[in-house]
Amino acid sequence: MKKNDEQSLSFLGLGIMGKPMAKNLLKAGYSLNVHNRSQKPVDELKKQGAQKANTPKEAAENSNIIITMLPNSPDVESVVLGENGIIEGAKAGQIVIDMSSIEPLVSQRIAGELGKKGVEMLDAPVSGGEPGAIKGELAIMVGGKEKIFKKCLPIFNVLGKSAVLVGDVGAGGFAKLANQIIVAMNIAAVSEAFVLGQKAGLNPEKLFQAIRGGLAGSNVMDAKIPLITERNFHPGFKIKLHDKDIKNVLKTAADLQVPLPLTELIEQIMTSLLADGKGELDHGGMIRYFEKLAGVEVRTL
Amino acid sequence: MKKNDEQSLSFLGLGIMGKPMAKNLLKAGYSLNVHNRSQKPVDELKKQGAQKANTPKEAAENSNIIITMLPNSPDVESVVLGENGIIEGAKAGQIVIDMSSIEPLVSQRIAGELGKKGVEMLDAPVSGGEPGAIKGELAIMVGGKEKIFKKCLPIFNVLGKSAVLVGDVGAGGFAKLANQIIVAMNIAAVSEAFVLGQKAGLNPEKLFQAIRGGLAGSNVMDAKIPLITERNFHPGFKIKLHDKDIKNVLKTAADLQVPLPLTELIEQIMTSLLADGKGELDHGGMIRYFEKLAGVEVRTL
Repeated sequence: MKKNDEQSLSFLGLGIMGKPMAKNLLKAGYSLNVHNRSQKPVDELKKQGAQKANTPKEAAENSNIIITMLPNSPDVESVVLGENGIIEGAKAGQIVIDMSSIEPLVSQRIAGELGKKGVEMLDAPVSGGEPGAIKGELAIMVGGKEKIFKKCLPIFNVLGKSAVLVGDVGAGGFAKLANQIIVAMNIAAVSEAFVLGQKAGLNPEKLFQAIRGGLAGSNVMDAKIPLITERNFHPGFKIKLHDKDIKNVLKTAADLQVPLPLTELIEQIMTSLLADGKGELDHGGMIRYFEKLAGVEVRTL
Repeated sequence: MKKNDEQSLSFLGLGIMGKPMAKNLLKAGYSLNVHNRSQKPVDELKKQGAQKANTPKEAAENSNIIITMLPNSPDVESVVLGENGIIEGAKAGQIVIDMSSIEPLVSQRIAGELGKKGVEMLDAPVSGGEPGAIKGELAIMVGGKEKIFKKCLPIFNVLGKSAVLVGDVGAGGFAKLANQIIVAMNIAAVSEAFVLGQKAGLNPEKLFQAIRGGLAGSNVMDAKIPLITERNFHPGFKIKLHDKDIKNVLKTAADLQVPLPLTELIEQIMTSLLADGKGELDHGGMIRYFEKLAGVEVRTL
């Protein structure tokens, strides 16, 4: 990416995901205003050439495209629509890209408010976790207008290995929720299968080799079974964050009147894991719930 | 495979899976005795060079290796241990390969009975369905002694694209049950995710493209989503057969004291599908349960 002087960006939210994403934009030559609740990552980014914005409003006043990467729906609502929020500084023609994983119905409401001022919005949550953010290899699921998506594609190309426009605003978030349902349930699937196998005396590595090439094969199995058999639950993506996403799935599903019986049960399991102090583990650690039920650990015999 | 005169085989059970498997063994040059409850597939195989065995006992008297491919545990028990069963005709040193998908604890009991006469047994269930059986591309999960496995490997190489020795007798069946847990639950996972997406207004093909490359990707998603969006539920592998496997999972899990909360719920869902007359559909048709709950169909908008 060459420097694009027409696009001065702001990046709000320099957490585990946001900080490496902002760094990649700086490296790609973008001029970047940054804002974060705590000061330390702001100082780190300033050393690499970023300017500090004191408030989301100030960030919006000083850039054409404002990217947000925040924990959850209320944070995005507050940063965009709250006091000294983006909406107070934004002008018609500007673009807000929210890359947080939040309730898509909230994204749609926020986009509606911004739209009243002529400000465009994309919701663009990501998959790939901290490693994907660091390497600029996120999978980006985007909702919004095609014209705006195309305008922002150079930015997505810095941050991710793929960016797919799924539909209108909110569609990125719906796709992310669908993604998180599948990932959680596929982890539960290998958990139940491998716990049964272990109790039956199977070597989990041989079981893995016997079934991974068939219809049971999945990216979850390939990514998580080697870690599980080594008893490595270092995150990765924490159970407590996946739990946040599943809670957003269930809120959204209730709003849309979509019963999700298995996802409901997944949420009960995650709640139990949180109660058991396992929230900081990688989501592959979901297997610990099933192991506890059966009194066995999946490890090489 | 060249003809191996030392190995005269019997093949018992010429159903959807067994008939094409037997044909492949004939094509590979094996001398084959066949037996089946109904006469029609026996006649078909005879035209291709097979000999008819009137009973399992007679088959065992006339061959060194006896392969069974039968619907469920009681069928295998009856054909191996029942009146005029294999055990009445078998001699020490012979080998029974049961390729049916049955309860592994039943496989172990049958192997114990055969062992008293010095007859060896492998349990070797398969994955890949009718197309895999026809093409000789099954994935074969084998339990038994390594020496016996190696002796039978030329046969497995005719029938399948892979054969993995997972452990002692019963281990093949346990691996198959683990496989079937994962396949069923991964179908449920894409079902809940895509039904939510549909209700949210997403184009399922775009959703598929947006998430298939990430952690949510799976062989189930790649195999079933294109069929589902075309509303093609032609089997493939029928829901009623997958239901049989899940019932065997739950029986086995109860015997081994392994609680499987999600698989229990899958069984409730399959029971509802059977009650709704959907047992003959491909197991990708499990999505019909979730679609009915939400009042929507996953199809391209």
